[in-house]
Amino acid sequence: MTQRTTWDTNRTGKARRLERAARLADGKVIPTGKAVEALETLIEPGDRVVLEGDNQKQADFLSRSLAVVDPAKVHDVHLLISSISRPEHLDLFEDGIATKVDFAYAGAQSTRVAQLLADGALDIGAIHTYIELYGRFFVDLIPKVALVAANSADRDGNLYTGPNTEDTPTIAEATAFRDGIVIAQVNQLVDSVDELPRVDIPGGWVDFVIEADRPYQIEPLFTRDPRLITEVQILMAMMAIRGVYERHQVTSLNHGIGFDTAAIELLLPTYGEKLGLRGKIARNWVLNPHPTLIPAIESGWVESVVAFGGEVGMEKYCAARPDVFATGRDGMLRSNRLIAQAAGHYAADMFIGASLQIDRDGNSSTVTQGRLSGFGGAPNMGADARGRRHASPAWLDLASGGQEDITRGRKLVVQVVETFGKGGVPKLVESLDAVEVGKESGFTVTPVMIYGDDVTHVVTEEGVAYLYKARDLAERREALAAVAGVSPVGRRHERTRGERLRRDGLVALPEDLGVRRTDAKRSLLAATSIEDLVTWSGGLYEPTAKFRSW
Amino acid sequence: MTQRTTWDTNRTGKARRLERAARLADGKVIPTGKAVEALETLIEPGDRVVLEGDNQKQADFLSRSLAVVDPAKVHDVHLLISSISRPEHLDLFEDGIATKVDFAYAGAQSTRVAQLLADGALDIGAIHTYIELYGRFFVDLIPKVALVAANSADRDGNLYTGPNTEDTPTIAEATAFRDGIVIAQVNQLVDSVDELPRVDIPGGWVDFVIEADRPYQIEPLFTRDPRLITEVQILMAMMAIRGVYERHQVTSLNHGIGFDTAAIELLLPTYGEKLGLRGKIARNWVLNPHPTLIPAIESGWVESVVAFGGEVGMEKYCAARPDVFATGRDGMLRSNRLIAQAAGHYAADMFIGASLQIDRDGNSSTVTQGRLSGFGGAPNMGADARGRRHASPAWLDLASGGQEDITRGRKLVVQVVETFGKGGVPKLVESLDAVEVGKESGFTVTPVMIYGDDVTHVVTEEGVAYLYKARDLAERREALAAVAGVSPVGRRHERTRGERLRRDGLVALPEDLGVRRTDAKRSLLAATSIEDLVTWSGGLYEPTAKFRSW
Repeated sequence: MTQRTTWDTNRTGKARRLERAARLADGKVIPTGKAVEALETLIEPGDRVVLEGDNQKQADFLSRSLAVVDPAKVHDVHLLISSISRPEHLDLFEDGIATKVDFAYAGAQSTRVAQLLADGALDIGAIHTYIELYGRFFVDLIPKVALVAANSADRDGNLYTGPNTEDTPTIAEATAFRDGIVIAQVNQLVDSVDELPRVDIPGGWVDFVIEADRPYQIEPLFTRDPRLITEVQILMAMMAIRGVYERHQVTSLNHGIGFDTAAIELLLPTYGEKLGLRGKIARNWVLNPHPTLIPAIESGWVESVVAFGGEVGMEKYCAARPDVFATGRDGMLRSNRLIAQAAGHYAADMFIGASLQIDRDGNSSTVTQGRLSGFGGAPNMGADARGRRHASPAWLDLASGGQEDITRGRKLVVQVVETFGKGGVPKLVESLDAVEVGKESGFTVTPVMIYGDDVTHVVTEEGVAYLYKARDLAERREALAAVAGVSPVGRRHERTRGERLRRDGLVALPEDLGVRRTDAKRSLLAATSIEDLVTWSGGLYEPTAKFRSW
Repeated sequence: MTQRTTWDTNRTGKARRLERAARLADGKVIPTGKAVEALETLIEPGDRVVLEGDNQKQADFLSRSLAVVDPAKVHDVHLLISSISRPEHLDLFEDGIATKVDFAYAGAQSTRVAQLLADGALDIGAIHTYIELYGRFFVDLIPKVALVAANSADRDGNLYTGPNTEDTPTIAEATAFRDGIVIAQVNQLVDSVDELPRVDIPGGWVDFVIEADRPYQIEPLFTRDPRLITEVQILMAMMAIRGVYERHQVTSLNHGIGFDTAAIELLLPTYGEKLGLRGKIARNWVLNPHPTLIPAIESGWVESVVAFGGEVGMEKYCAARPDVFATGRDGMLRSNRLIAQAAGHYAADMFIGASLQIDRDGNSSTVTQGRLSGFGGAPNMGADARGRRHASPAWLDLASGGQEDITRGRKLVVQVVETFGKGGVPKLVESLDAVEVGKESGFTVTPVMIYGDDVTHVVTEEGVAYLYKARDLAERREALAAVAGVSPVGRRHERTRGERLRRDGLVALPEDLGVRRTDAKRSLLAATSIEDLVTWSGGLYEPTAKFRSW
């Protein structure tokens, strides 16, 4: 038998790096102007480096600094990043500073990711959902260095994150307890812990703090202007409320970020109220602080919201609604993406979101030709939680056997989609673009966002398909085709089958749900503009300039 | 439209409670002798109270104190507890101090849980897996009061947990940021943060600390004495290594806590080494610090272990192996059940564990007549992670379509079971006891531990059934029956079908795997006693008295 004899490679390696960097820092504090040199000193070639690029918050001072290190000193970094969202995240690869990336979402940089991959400049480990990427930080992608962002820090490294706690505690924990090095950029440095509004991450987990040249970048990703909600979206929202929320008594839920679900949020205090559903549905939310949820909150619909992150402009509003949002002693929101994702998977009865494309089997994807946007959190939210063991009325309402004597429920996974998108491009298609993109990119796995066999309902402007009731794949296809209009999927549908599917409850048309198409008017929305949302909030919601159109 | 006007019920309620309790405390410090009075003052009737009863660590000073409060003052508490493991956890219900419970595991108290339920003294909200219960702490079971345990605290409430961090950060976060009250019992109180070995939970999240009358209870739940490993278990372990680990190149994994998987751990440095598998399989572990993993660690098999909790006696060993275990600046293990469960679900390729009962469809359960033990973490680990999107060789090796053009992999969920247990009771049965128990207890959901359609492999002393290869339920049943010996499930098996299943790769007998039954000797184990494990560890492993039999 062999015998391993070295057990503290990481610890001695860290000590060596810290020693090298000691001359640059005053204790834990690195001067702003020394950031690049510090990264050149602390990062070694081939290191796994977590760069905090979250959904919202960006450690952009550190990423800008990393992008200008000397590639002779720092190269072949294996970048771990939730969200590739800034140009320099990819510049790293053009200079050879980084060569490999594991990520969850690409967003605005998705086209360039595809291009770099095609050029062979980028090696993608894998595209993950957020929570599985965090999991790997602890298992087989343990970081050597973490570059994170916080609002403020004291000289001992205690961090205050404000509302956008997001991924920072998870990244710090993964790195700090493996003898990695945690470097935090902060908007403000204070002398002692008493000057911090609260402590989100203990100083003992943090090796260095650097005051950034400017506050970290943060984007309002979850603000949807009600002005842009169409009457078709309102019709689909009405059907969703009657045909899904009311029918299954859905109380805990997660919403996607599109206009379709924003419409639902804005119909709760009007249409939902008229139906007498307040207190009966949509009480407990796993959701970023969506401004379009304000009217429902103000009308007493919402008991609680657990947030993945924050939303720019919603800070004061969240702080003024502590019974609804998680807040700290400082009064500000505390978010936590790992916890919200775990809760969204296991403690929410429903995920409902829009899709860019759905195939005939119900598989959906946001990957389209030439864009590798990744998955974010949707696959985690939009998957049946087979490890779940607690029951709720909604979950049980979808109970099925598979075996006669064993009862189990099922998560509601609802996709909202118009049969055609802009320019008359069908959204319900025979085969997903993702299939082709996956092949072209040499992916071993097809980049599907949500698998068809996890989708329980599809809502289109034609009606609701109750896919979970289908006895087999053929019937699932039929039910989906019945609400697919004249899209390629819908054209396969035979009219006579539709009547049988309605009778069997696999398909409901608006009239089956008591929804009148003519009622689907914008006047039914609780707010029709950002200005309305501000009014609802009593002035607490402060939209950024780009949304101040009135 | 209605308008909600109160937004800080929790905050004002907390202020009221803190004001009442101020006279009992010196700042955040409650004297040991005032614990009962403090609980009577801080807890209100009907409160949701999290009591830290983890898998290992117990806030037993606080639970003993809670059990003797005046039921006229504190009653109808809704108890949230991971693990019901101490008598007073249930005494609470006999006195009406608590009336409802949501939990994940009952263990030693499972018989009494069943009894109290039958007597109508206990209202079970639901039995959860750990991670879904934590999720609900943030969504719809938000706690008013949390009673937690730590090793030490300073007077500002900063907590040091030592190796058994376990659930404490998650409970504290759920409570502290919802204006709930966090009370920590500690083994030792120190004056200032500089005297704490490290900070696991920031003081700002903690309202009160109480020095306990004695150190918190903690049990060595994961120590398996190699003396008790049988040759049948060794045979099954050999088949698992060849037929599962080697065949699928499994690198990241979680093991159950039984002797079956302990046997596998102890065969890696001997049998596995002979097969040349070191570095190729079983590198990254999601696991408590099992003493039986010591020989594999010492032989260089194990790159990393992420731990749910600690294990009594393993403290010094883990501290001396920081490249393998997550440790803090104090040198001691940091565990975290939420993170390890998330990692186990999403970042491990395989779960393998023993089962008490498996039915003909592959469903398994540890619920047997008269015992409501609950699930712990197994359903989360033993479920296909349908939200997973990253590939690995093992995961891809089980790739299947369901649809011709979409490739996805699958988690390996392996059950190890002997066809018969002690006293000749069959373990492979037509129907699980859990079905009957579920009906008797009035459960809406059958208390199945792992669903048959998630089980990919079953290993018995007869052979390995590759259930994931079955094309339908009938074939799954046949494959399982083929390795079920003369148990009720096996008796249905026709010998002729067995040959076809072997040919098609759905079943492998020992000889198909190159495993000789005669080689399955105890001498093949890297350690055959606790004493051997101590030797392997160079004396760093310090088993508790009950395991010191030499």
